[in-house]
Formats: sequence, structure tokens, C-alpha cells
Amino acid sequence: MTLADKPHTPLLDRVAGPSDLRRMPDTDLAALADELRAEVISAVSQTGGHLGSSLGVVELSVAIHAVFDTPKDKLIWDVGHQCYPHKILTGRRDRIRTLRQKDGLSGFTKRTESEHDPFGAAHSSTSISAALGFAVGRDMGRPTGDAIAVIGDGAISAGMAYEALNNAGAEGRRLFVILNDNEMSIAPPVGAMSSYLSRMYAAEPVARMRSMVEGMEAAMPEPMRSGARRARQLVTGLGGSGTLFEELGFDYVGPIDGHDMSQLLPVLRAARARARGPVLIHCCTVKGKGYAPAETSADRGHGVSKFDPATGPQASPAKPGAAPSYTSVFGTALTQEAARDDRIVAVTAAMPDGSGLSKMAARFPNRVFDVGIAEQHGVTFAAGMAASGLRPFCAIYSTFLQRGYDQVVHDVALQNLPVRFAIDRAGLVGADGATHAGAYDMAYLSNLPGFTVMAAADEAELMHMVATAAAHDEGPIAFRYPRGAGTGVTLPERGEVLEIGRGRVLEEGEDIAILSCGAHLPQCREAAAALREAGHTVTLADARFVKPLDSDLLRRLALGHRALVTVEQGAEGGFGSVVLHALAWMGLLDRGLAIRTICLPDRIIEQASPDEMYANAAMTAGDIFEVAQGALGTRAKVTPLALAR
Amino acid sequence: MTLADKPHTPLLDRVAGPSDLRRMPDTDLAALADELRAEVISAVSQTGGHLGSSLGVVELSVAIHAVFDTPKDKLIWDVGHQCYPHKILTGRRDRIRTLRQKDGLSGFTKRTESEHDPFGAAHSSTSISAALGFAVGRDMGRPTGDAIAVIGDGAISAGMAYEALNNAGAEGRRLFVILNDNEMSIAPPVGAMSSYLSRMYAAEPVARMRSMVEGMEAAMPEPMRSGARRARQLVTGLGGSGTLFEELGFDYVGPIDGHDMSQLLPVLRAARARARGPVLIHCCTVKGKGYAPAETSADRGHGVSKFDPATGPQASPAKPGAAPSYTSVFGTALTQEAARDDRIVAVTAAMPDGSGLSKMAARFPNRVFDVGIAEQHGVTFAAGMAASGLRPFCAIYSTFLQRGYDQVVHDVALQNLPVRFAIDRAGLVGADGATHAGAYDMAYLSNLPGFTVMAAADEAELMHMVATAAAHDEGPIAFRYPRGAGTGVTLPERGEVLEIGRGRVLEEGEDIAILSCGAHLPQCREAAAALREAGHTVTLADARFVKPLDSDLLRRLALGHRALVTVEQGAEGGFGSVVLHALAWMGLLDRGLAIRTICLPDRIIEQASPDEMYANAAMTAGDIFEVAQGALGTRAKVTPLALAR
Repeated sequence: MTLADKPHTPLLDRVAGPSDLRRMPDTDLAALADELRAEVISAVSQTGGHLGSSLGVVELSVAIHAVFDTPKDKLIWDVGHQCYPHKILTGRRDRIRTLRQKDGLSGFTKRTESEHDPFGAAHSSTSISAALGFAVGRDMGRPTGDAIAVIGDGAISAGMAYEALNNAGAEGRRLFVILNDNEMSIAPPVGAMSSYLSRMYAAEPVARMRSMVEGMEAAMPEPMRSGARRARQLVTGLGGSGTLFEELGFDYVGPIDGHDMSQLLPVLRAARARARGPVLIHCCTVKGKGYAPAETSADRGHGVSKFDPATGPQASPAKPGAAPSYTSVFGTALTQEAARDDRIVAVTAAMPDGSGLSKMAARFPNRVFDVGIAEQHGVTFAAGMAASGLRPFCAIYSTFLQRGYDQVVHDVALQNLPVRFAIDRAGLVGADGATHAGAYDMAYLSNLPGFTVMAAADEAELMHMVATAAAHDEGPIAFRYPRGAGTGVTLPERGEVLEIGRGRVLEEGEDIAILSCGAHLPQCREAAAALREAGHTVTLADARFVKPLDSDLLRRLALGHRALVTVEQGAEGGFGSVVLHALAWMGLLDRGLAIRTICLPDRIIEQASPDEMYANAAMTAGDIFEVAQGALGTRAKVTPLALAR
Repeated sequence: MTLADKPHTPLLDRVAGPSDLRRMPDTDLAALADELRAEVISAVSQTGGHLGSSLGVVELSVAIHAVFDTPKDKLIWDVGHQCYPHKILTGRRDRIRTLRQKDGLSGFTKRTESEHDPFGAAHSSTSISAALGFAVGRDMGRPTGDAIAVIGDGAISAGMAYEALNNAGAEGRRLFVILNDNEMSIAPPVGAMSSYLSRMYAAEPVARMRSMVEGMEAAMPEPMRSGARRARQLVTGLGGSGTLFEELGFDYVGPIDGHDMSQLLPVLRAARARARGPVLIHCCTVKGKGYAPAETSADRGHGVSKFDPATGPQASPAKPGAAPSYTSVFGTALTQEAARDDRIVAVTAAMPDGSGLSKMAARFPNRVFDVGIAEQHGVTFAAGMAASGLRPFCAIYSTFLQRGYDQVVHDVALQNLPVRFAIDRAGLVGADGATHAGAYDMAYLSNLPGFTVMAAADEAELMHMVATAAAHDEGPIAFRYPRGAGTGVTLPERGEVLEIGRGRVLEEGEDIAILSCGAHLPQCREAAAALREAGHTVTLADARFVKPLDSDLLRRLALGHRALVTVEQGAEGGFGSVVLHALAWMGLLDRGLAIRTICLPDRIIEQASPDEMYANAAMTAGDIFEVAQGALGTRAKVTPLALAR
């Protein structure tokens, strides 16, 4: 990084916070936006991150802060990954080059980071619900001003956002929802119309819009008018006419050009001055706007690694000899299985690439279903396919499957339908931080009757688990695997079908047993080596199955060792809980067993590299070694060689 | 019950299954519907149940089975509580008077009960997702016919249904969604129009509807037309025009009179004959139709107890001296707290009466928010209110809070926002069966950092927990309590604020400790008495807090007794798991502790009375006694007196 990379930003240098924007003339605000864009590019070139989304809202960020009285007014960015310009404008410029790093700024909005982040996010479609909460607080006398939610067109189409629009419309409280429409398929923004509408709204907003809508309604033939209105009333619970948003009780303004300050500023000012109820402002923006390498890339620079600003983000060249990612191994293995069995289908919730399903879609486009940001529907849709005799794989990240939890319980588990859950991003995930941690899936799945739950220790195991799930028609089955590269083990031609509920013993000893479940096996192996160096004999086993538990193996481990340590990449209530309950019920704790359960601790683990996050969680090989030593009552006096490397 | 109560049903007596309907002339079908209605009333008068909803769909049930080729065609009733006529028509008439009873028919649709229930339900808004799954199965060669979802106007407004409509519209597959519109505020059904539309559709359905819609669209002024269409495209991801359903890609038919067979039959036949893509058929029905005592009651006979058919369902007279229900105690206690603290607000998801919040709403109508069937939004809305400084109580049944699980994790727990969760219907709930069991809340809440989780042992404890939650601003807090009547304890004037994380010892002994968490305390007390009679000294404690656990108390119990039994009304992964993990980490298992965890077993417990369900779950006082004896290694040879009563 050379000094030349630092952009020249005379206006931005004068901005310590949003109040400084409110003292600038509009012409300076437009120029400031250009400087802000350059600063975002410069920063992300050093940190990596969500470049495209942030570039799309540069002008919007400036305009909102210039018009509204933040932080008294509550600005809520949906998902929050487009917040880099907002962070620069709200006193965090000095730390913007620490984005997504250990001890650095979060890549999302975060309440503990700034009073300018009144409601954090990372999962989508929560902003309108939260904004409505603030609006109620204001109306009940809390010291808070207006509430403004900024939400993308993908996020607003999720069921949760619909629920919130519906409720906000019925409540009728003053509230601003800014629809940030950067749908790449819809371009260019509707220029003439948007200018026309923004001018019109600035002049005489609500009354004029209403009269136009009423004129439109009156022009419909009567039977359809009543029928249509009545149908809408049923869905929305409201009368009304006009756009969908108006059906839901919102005043609708737009579409306007979200990169044109001469449209943004007057429309926002007029809305702020005159709104009495909920208003939806429809802004068209371009993802990656203003930076050619992003604008011209296929994903508009959605998530990028560090790059040279002169040339733009590049696809990372594959490191020679590097292990493939778990995601990629899953995609390949499922495609193999699908080629052999035409009943296999797959579901993703707006993550065809992230889930690895695009591999299968390339070969079998009619058997992969992208349902959008709609995990609730996705799970039950898969259950319906399973009920019809298909073999659905529902590929949803651990953290996002939380959105479909009730459907997993009610539609899948209670009906014992053989839906296969491919749970990527299990465990701690790195730069995306705590909001994306796959901490809870083992806990929320392993107490559901009839469920089989597996955790892959490496990418070859993942292949076996894909094959096992494909063959398993007896009920629901899930397998979890972490984000990132595999361990580099040799991959089989094809996965083998595992015996359900059977673990494997990797090393045999007599003093202590380490029972690993999932991808923490390398750390367990290292701890076992250290224990042996310290003079103990060690059994190392991989449970493979969280449920059904291998009770024969467990009995052998409990009866044949002085101490037993379980290790899992998940929160309390998962594998360790299954083991402890089984031991209690079998009476294997009655005569004494020094058992310790190593799992994610009962606190939030902040962003860092996954290894750093597991270190923070006290889950390194050294930690496992220490816990095992403690259980044996023979705490070592010196660090054994195996850990000093 | 006298023979006179059995209705005269000559036509219905000839119906062994739906194929018999397809051989009847239309005039007989109308008469058959009347007999079916009489049979439903007669059956529910003996069993109690969802009378009003079932009466509303009598004609619809006959018409669908007469027109479609069930069970090859898959008929999916949303929620499923309106399925009594369907059950009578599909070979279950001989068991219809066992509805909702032990070993009887389920009050909902259920796959294991009949091939005519292809996808069971009980929670709302799942039917369209499931039907789409079947439609895909059919298109991929599975031996299944058409898929028909019947969904009410309340259920279709939930986010999940919107997600499903959106996806079904985009998929464009042949699929039937019948909107059963019985909104009581919208009456009477639109008679002339519906007849007109049904005739029109029967004649030349799709093309004619399309041309009418296009005419309507063309009549709009251009700027609004484009703006409206574009906005809708953004929300729906689709082009289109006309009703909301058409925006989503459906052909829309209706509204028609859902009690008029002369409309239902031709419309369904025409739809079946001609549909190529998804079709929404809008039927207006009247809840409680055809039975005056139901039609004229406030809730249209939604859920009734046994009654005399001549006089109709009656409100149960309060039994003199009976204990108040937990729900009622909660409603009163919260209203008390709200009167003292104007920052207290409350959220319900379409359950103002069931949750007890209607008491608070009667006094503070502006501080109780009914968000509709929208648990996802409801939780995050409450989080937003908490962030603004209000003190929200989110009152959602245990089983339905599953719908808002991700919001509890992501919006509440990760931000440590003081949302208060009032979790009614915790544990097994009786006639509503397994789908409504409140089994998982302790497990899915107790591993979330910063959460406080309480379980009430009786209704006085519930009052203390309401007060404790009201006073707790440090982070999220939840308290759970069962369905039904309290234990009859004396209630305090006002609840006391409990010390966080402190349990209470009720009886002291030395041999064995029973640590109860929640409403199973009476059974624990009875087991303790039996153990004493068998010659043991017993400590009985009530944990009060699932989390934070009272580790001082736990240490005393573990060190001071030979055996420890935990008891909870919930699934594995909850209280017992918290206790076991704590014991393991404290090293209290190392030297031997005969610990047993009594919780819901890893299988589905079918409907019966709650006591019968807990007996099925091996959780009676006698079971606790047996487990405790086993843990002490001194199994009793005779049943002690205390259990023989």
C-alpha cells in the first residue's frame, strides 16, 4: 500500500459526523459523495468486503444523513453489509481500514460500535420491524426521532418484510422505508419518470398522489375493481388502491434515481417535512456504482478480497495443491449422486453459489430450486417434495436455517419426512462474525424425534455423508460442515453409505478418551499427540453421528478410561448434551467419570479468523490438552513439545 | 347422549369414500352437504373441537372431493383444524366421535392417519409450500396428481404463505390454491358478483379474465401504471397486472359463494379442466355456517367444549373454588405491572385472548400490539421497541415461538435487548397433540448468551416471574408456564422480583435430591413423599431458573446426596443439559454421582389429556419415584402408600 492509494478528499476530511453534512450546500454534498466513493474503494481494497453494495448507496448515505437528524433519528440498514459509507460518515473513518478484522470494525451495523447503529443486522429483512418498534417508542414518549429503514429489493421480498410492511401499514405511524432497488436485471433506472415523480412529490406530495390513485381506481370496470380490491383487502387486511405498498397502507414515492443528489435531497426533505403515516421511497441504484471493475463484474463486486484499486478485484487464483472447499466438495458430491438418482432435487434460499448448488444446477437445471430469501417456505417446500417421493436436499447455512426452525420441527420432524439438510458454515465462520456463526444447529436438531444428525470431520467424510443422506429414506437427516477449505485428505471416487449411528475409533489408549464430533478433529488429534507426549495413553474417536449416538462406543469409552472429553464446534445443548444424557441414563456417571464437554462458550465470539475465534472460545488444541490434563488430575508442569511447534 | 341426537343421513350413509361422491348427481351433493353438516355438529357436540371452522367448509369439502381425484390428487388443508367434514368423507366417519381424544382421531390432518391427509398441519400457512412440493413431484414423474391447498384469509397473510405464493407464481406449475375467506368482518359474501364471476369463469376462464385485467391496466394513467407495475415487479419479482395474486403469477377466480354448490362445482370443474399454471380460487364462507348457535356467537364457535346440539355450545361456568388458569394469572399480573410502568408494552401474534393479553388491552388498548400471524416480525418489532427504551413483553406460545427463533437469536440475543418472552402452553398441551407441544423452548433459549430463562412451578411463581421480567433491563428474559388451570396456591397481591439465578429448597434430606424446574413440581413433591415413605430422606428443590443456573444450589445438591434427579416439562437439551454441563465443568461427576435427567422422551407423544400424555412420556410421580429408587440402587419391592392413593 502506497500513499498514492489514499484518495484526495478535502470535503470528506471536514466531516467528523453527520451534523457537518447538514451545514454543507447541496453542491458540496454531491462532490462529497464522489470523495466518499473513492474512500470506500480505497478502504475495501485493503480489507476486502461487501464493495458493490456499499458503492450502490454512497449518495443515499450522504443524503439521508444530510436530511435526517441522525442519530436522534434512527437509521436502520437492512442486512447491514452496505454500511461502509455510513460508517465513514459517522465517526468511524479512522478505523475503516480495520473492517471485518479481529478487533476492527464489523462488516455490518452493530449497536455496540456506534450510537449511529441503532439496530444491528446481518441476516436480512429485519429493518422494517425494528423501525416500527422505534416509531412506537417515539410515539410513546421515548427520546427518539424518526425511524428510517433502508432495504434492498431482495430483502423486501422475504416473508418477514411482508409481515412488517403489513403491520406498519395497519399501524399507520410515521415511518420511512427506503427501497434500495439495485436489481441488476432492472436497468437503467427509469430516468424521465423518476425525475417527474420526484418533482411532483416535492411540490405537493400526498394529496396529489392520492388523487391520482383514486382516478386510476375509478377508471377500472366495476366488477374487477371490487374483486381486485376485495382480494387485496383479504391479503393485506386493509382497504386501498394503487401500488402494492399503497395497498399495505404506505404512501409510495418513486422511483427516483438513487445516485442523483438533485432527486434524493428534495424528495427526502419533502417526505420528512410532510409525512404523517408510513412512506415508501423507491430508489433505483446500481450495485458497484462508480467503480468500473465492480460495475462490470458479474456479481457487481458483491463480496471481494483485498485488491489493487487500479485494476480492481480479481478472482483469487487457486493455490497449487490447496484443499478444495467443503462447499465445493458438497456441490460435486451431490451432483454425482444426482446423476445416479433422478429423484434427488435440491433447494437453496438465494444462495446457489454459496451453497455449492450451482454445480448441480449447471448439469440439472430443473432439479435445483432457488426459492429466494424464504427459508420458511424452502423447508416446507422440500418437505412436500419428500412427501411426493422425491429425495430433496435442502442446502441452507446453519445460521440461516434458524429462519426455518419451526418448519423443520412441524413439517419435517413431526411427519418424519426424509428431507436431507446440508448445513454449510457450521461452527465459527470468520470475518462475518457472530451473526453468521453456525453455533446452534446441533442443539436445535438433535432433540427432534427421528432426526439423524451427522457432522463431517473432513471433506472425505462429507462425501460419505452426502451418500448416506441420499440413501436414507427412513426420516429426516442432516449433515454439517464448516466454512472454508477442507483438510486436504484424499477424496474417494464416490462417498460410501455410512452405517447409521456408528462412530469410528482412530487411535486406542487407556487413560483418556477424546470423542470428537465434526471438524475439530485436527485439534483433537494434536491434543492427543500432546497427551501422549506427556505420558498418557489416549483413545481418539470421531462420533460422526450426533444422533443417533453410538452408545456401544460411548460405553466402551466411559468404562475403559479414567476421563472422557467431548469436542464439538457448536453451542451447549448439542453433542455434549446428547452424550451426557446418555451417560446419565445408562448409569455410567454413577461410579465416577471425569467427563468434560468442550463446546462454544456461553458468550458471543467476535469476528476474527476462524482459528482466532476458536482460540477466543478456548478451543485450541492446547485448550483441549489442558482440559484433558485437568480431568486426569495430572496437570502438566511444562508445555509438551507437540504444542510448542 | 340419546339416539335422537344422531342425525338422519341417508345420503351420507352411502359414502364410504370420495369416489362415491363422484357418482352422485349435483343435486344429491347439495343435500349430502346438509347431512354432513348435521353429522359434524352431532360429533363435535360429543367431543368438543373446532366447530366453526369445520362448518364453514362443509360444501367446499364435498365439492373438492367430488371434482378432484383424491387421494391421488393431494388435498392439503392449511392449519388442518377445519378437516372434520373431510375426515367424515374419507373413511373416518366411524371414528369421528373420538376426535381429539386419546387413541382417537387427531383434531388436525395427519399423514399417519389416512392417505387422504397427504401433508399434516396444525401450525398455519404451510399448505401452499407443501402443495408446490407435490406439484414438482408430479412434474418429475412421481405417482401423484394435482395439488390443492385450502387456506384461510388469516393464514394466507402470514409471511410464509407470501413466500410460497411468490415462489409458486414464479415456478408457474399447475397448482390450485383455494382461499377460504371467512373473515367475519367481511359479510355477507358478494352474491351477485360471485355468481357472475363463477359463470363467466366456467364459460371461458383464463382468456376472459386476462382480457379484463388488461383492459383495467390500460385504463390507468401512464405514469402511475408504470410506477405501480414496476413497484410490484420489485416486490414480487414478476411482471403482471391485476389482483395481487395475478401479480404473483396466479390466475385469479372469484370471489364465489363457498356455500353454494351451484357455484363451487362448475368453478372447480372448469379450473381442473383448464388450468395450466397456478390458480387461486377465492371462496367466501361463513364460519359456523348453518348452525345458529355457532353463527351467532362472538367467535363463531371457533373452539368449543362438548355441548347439547339443541342449545348449542355454552361458555363453561366457572367451577366454584377452581384455580385460575395460568393464562388468566399472566394477563392480570401483566396488567398490574403495566399500570405501574408506562414503558411496558405487549405483543401478540393473533392470540389476544389465548395469550391473556386482552386483559391488558382492555385497560391499555394502545400498548398491546396484535401483529397477526407474524411471529418473525413480532419478535423483531419487540426488539425495536426495547432498543427505543420501552419494556416489551412478547407473549407467544412455546410452539409458535419456534417461528421467530432466528429473530430471537439474531435480533434479541446477539444485541442483548431486554425483550420479555411470556411463553404460554409450555410442555404437553393435551387435545391439540404433538404439533402444539411446547417441548423445545428451554432447549432453544438456554444456550443463547445473555438470556435469562425461568420456569414457573405454580401460578404464584408466575406472578413473581412477571414482576421479575418487568424489572429486568439487563438483557432478554423468558418465563414459561403450562396450559390450563393453576395449582390453586394462594396468590400474592403483587409478584415479587426474584433474585436472578437463585433457586429455592422446599424440603431438606440427605439421600437423594430432586431438582424440579417448572410446573412438574407437584409430581416431584408426590415422588418425594413416596421416597420418604420408602425410608429415604429427600431434598426437594425448585430451580426457578433454567439459566443462569443456581450453581451454589447445584453444588450443595451434588455433594450432599447420593443421587440427583432433575425433572422438567421439556425435551432433552434444556434444563437437564444445563445441569449436566455445569456438573461436568465443576468436576462434580468425577467421583461419582447417580444423576438422572427426567425430560420428554425422544419420541412423539400423541394427544390425550396432559396427565395421560405425561404418563405416556414416563413422567408420572410414580415414574420419578422409580427413577430415583433406581439411582439409589434400592429398588422398592412394594408400592408405597403415597402412590397407591
